[in-house]
Amino acid sequence: MNRTSDSKSKLVTQRPDTPSGRAVHPVATLRWEGGIDGHLVFIDQTRLPNELVQLECRDITSLWNAIKELRVRGAPAIGIAAAYGICLGLQSASGGSGAACLHRLQESVDYLATSRPTAANLFWALDRMQRAAAGLEQLPPVAIRQRLLEVAQEIHAEDRAICHAIGRLGAELIEDGAGVLTHCNTGGLATSEYGTALSVLFSAQDDHKNIHVFIGETRPLLQGARLTAWELLNRGISATLICDSAAAQVMKEGRVQLVLTGADRIAANGDTANKIGTYALALLAHAHAIPFYVAAPLSTFDLSLPAGDAIPIEQRPAEEITRGFGQQTAPTGVDVYNPAFDVTPAQLITAIITERGFIRPVDRETIQKVAGS
Amino acid sequence: MNRTSDSKSKLVTQRPDTPSGRAVHPVATLRWEGGIDGHLVFIDQTRLPNELVQLECRDITSLWNAIKELRVRGAPAIGIAAAYGICLGLQSASGGSGAACLHRLQESVDYLATSRPTAANLFWALDRMQRAAAGLEQLPPVAIRQRLLEVAQEIHAEDRAICHAIGRLGAELIEDGAGVLTHCNTGGLATSEYGTALSVLFSAQDDHKNIHVFIGETRPLLQGARLTAWELLNRGISATLICDSAAAQVMKEGRVQLVLTGADRIAANGDTANKIGTYALALLAHAHAIPFYVAAPLSTFDLSLPAGDAIPIEQRPAEEITRGFGQQTAPTGVDVYNPAFDVTPAQLITAIITERGFIRPVDRETIQKVAGS
Repeated sequence: MNRTSDSKSKLVTQRPDTPSGRAVHPVATLRWEGGIDGHLVFIDQTRLPNELVQLECRDITSLWNAIKELRVRGAPAIGIAAAYGICLGLQSASGGSGAACLHRLQESVDYLATSRPTAANLFWALDRMQRAAAGLEQLPPVAIRQRLLEVAQEIHAEDRAICHAIGRLGAELIEDGAGVLTHCNTGGLATSEYGTALSVLFSAQDDHKNIHVFIGETRPLLQGARLTAWELLNRGISATLICDSAAAQVMKEGRVQLVLTGADRIAANGDTANKIGTYALALLAHAHAIPFYVAAPLSTFDLSLPAGDAIPIEQRPAEEITRGFGQQTAPTGVDVYNPAFDVTPAQLITAIITERGFIRPVDRETIQKVAGS
Repeated sequence: MNRTSDSKSKLVTQRPDTPSGRAVHPVATLRWEGGIDGHLVFIDQTRLPNELVQLECRDITSLWNAIKELRVRGAPAIGIAAAYGICLGLQSASGGSGAACLHRLQESVDYLATSRPTAANLFWALDRMQRAAAGLEQLPPVAIRQRLLEVAQEIHAEDRAICHAIGRLGAELIEDGAGVLTHCNTGGLATSEYGTALSVLFSAQDDHKNIHVFIGETRPLLQGARLTAWELLNRGISATLICDSAAAQVMKEGRVQLVLTGADRIAANGDTANKIGTYALALLAHAHAIPFYVAAPLSTFDLSLPAGDAIPIEQRPAEEITRGFGQQTAPTGVDVYNPAFDVTPAQLITAIITERGFIRPVDRETIQKVAGS
């Protein structure tokens, strides 16, 4: 694996404030520029909401770092980025044989698979790229690479359509005047466009429903405060930012009619891994008799895992908690537990909204019916 | 009211790291220096854990600001500080009559009562100072001031004894090897010494019980991360810092045998106002069949309030969430809801540990029996 130094470079910096309107955000979350020798351009999500910076990514190591550092984040967006990452990984394999190119493909898949262990969409996208290359070893590398770039672009375009479908379908669940609590970021920034859970809210807005969104700030990395608040403000959707620990209080005050989150991986029985704090929200919603919905494309399902306890949970650095704001906020030497995700048991989930319909009740049989095959 | 400019001055700055040992922290949370013309010295809790800074406070306005800005915090410590604050307020009333001195007392009480509306101990201490002065208007101001300083010092000394008693009593609840989840800071820093909930843990440690404490960082102001982690490290108690949103996950993993918090105000029926996030923890503990205990002195009870919905909840500035530690972490213009406290219904509380015994079950009758009269 050719681990070059990080060659990301800043392309564009602009004020992230845009006039309210229908655009989710002023530039695409991700885009591929050029042909097989092209590169990926994406919004650096660690810089929002203060700066809208796009990064160019010209090699697989930079991409691995960008995923690891959450510059690209959100399970669907990670899947798309990884597909393009394979294309970057193969750029150094033009000279050899088709077989050497496929060998390089395998190396690239194995490498990218180590970037974030929980997101199912990452493995789904890598698997799809691998399957697309199967049997192509007789072709010249340039033809293999051309085919794989097309597949990456298909994954990208399909995600857009899938997010739109999830939004249209899920909007049925949102009544006019509803208060919605969400967590982390599941918007256009987490996908190609529209998002998953936020796509549902954007669609409800398109239907002229008045909604009010409570956004959990989502410690430690504040994706709710930084990203979701920014996307909702950009769209002119009424929203209130709260500390994660205030969710129960807002529910008790009767201001939340449904909780709506995304997912990073869903097991065959419906147990759902998502951003740390999601399991707590599901329990709190249950205690307040509030429905709890998950919005996720079928690529989030991992039917090879019978239940949630088999989902690997990424552990993140202690510094995300102890130096969260660039300043030391805990004494040196304190032990920290920082799981990036938790698992919500299927029985706490009212329904899962997929591009192919609702999964309700959330159980093995219904999942098999909607997500199987 | 003579609103002088803030005359706090830094007295001592030292590295807060101290050798592990039995001292809760190397200097007193609060101490009065001198006689009736003396002043209050206290640890500036906003500077921990990075710096141990003591502030001198020589006038009532500085004290009001220190309470408002959480330089002095924790319901019992606020009560003690307010009692001394009355002594500061009366320093400008030496020249006139006893009646004028009592008039000044009333002004000082009214003023300090506006600093933090939720902490019952604040009102309890102010009320006790007022009652101590009743009928003293025939005395010269200097005698009234001498008597009130003695009362403030009694409040201070009693708090130490009360915290110690709560700790001894509560330690019965802690089994060897227990995992304990706590929230915010309820240690020596929140009181004169020892603390309330943390006093229970310190006593368990004195009994040579092995315990492990999970500390919720306590957004937005991170009292758990900054203060509780520091106190537990100083005492050599094994502890792990988590995001507030990870509490449910830690419970699910079977690592928590009890939840233990403090309280800011307890209504006559046992409904308990405490740091935002406490209500969520009580619900999550209930969902995992984990006992939920509150440790609080009787001065925390407000028997004039029939139930928790009558407790005023302090709303704090949006910037505590959007600019947590000097850095903008949410888009400009986002709406924020930042209640400092929430109310946990009595039925979710397994027992309240007071200096006069356990309140169990937590209901009006048992509270009347223990806290009445």
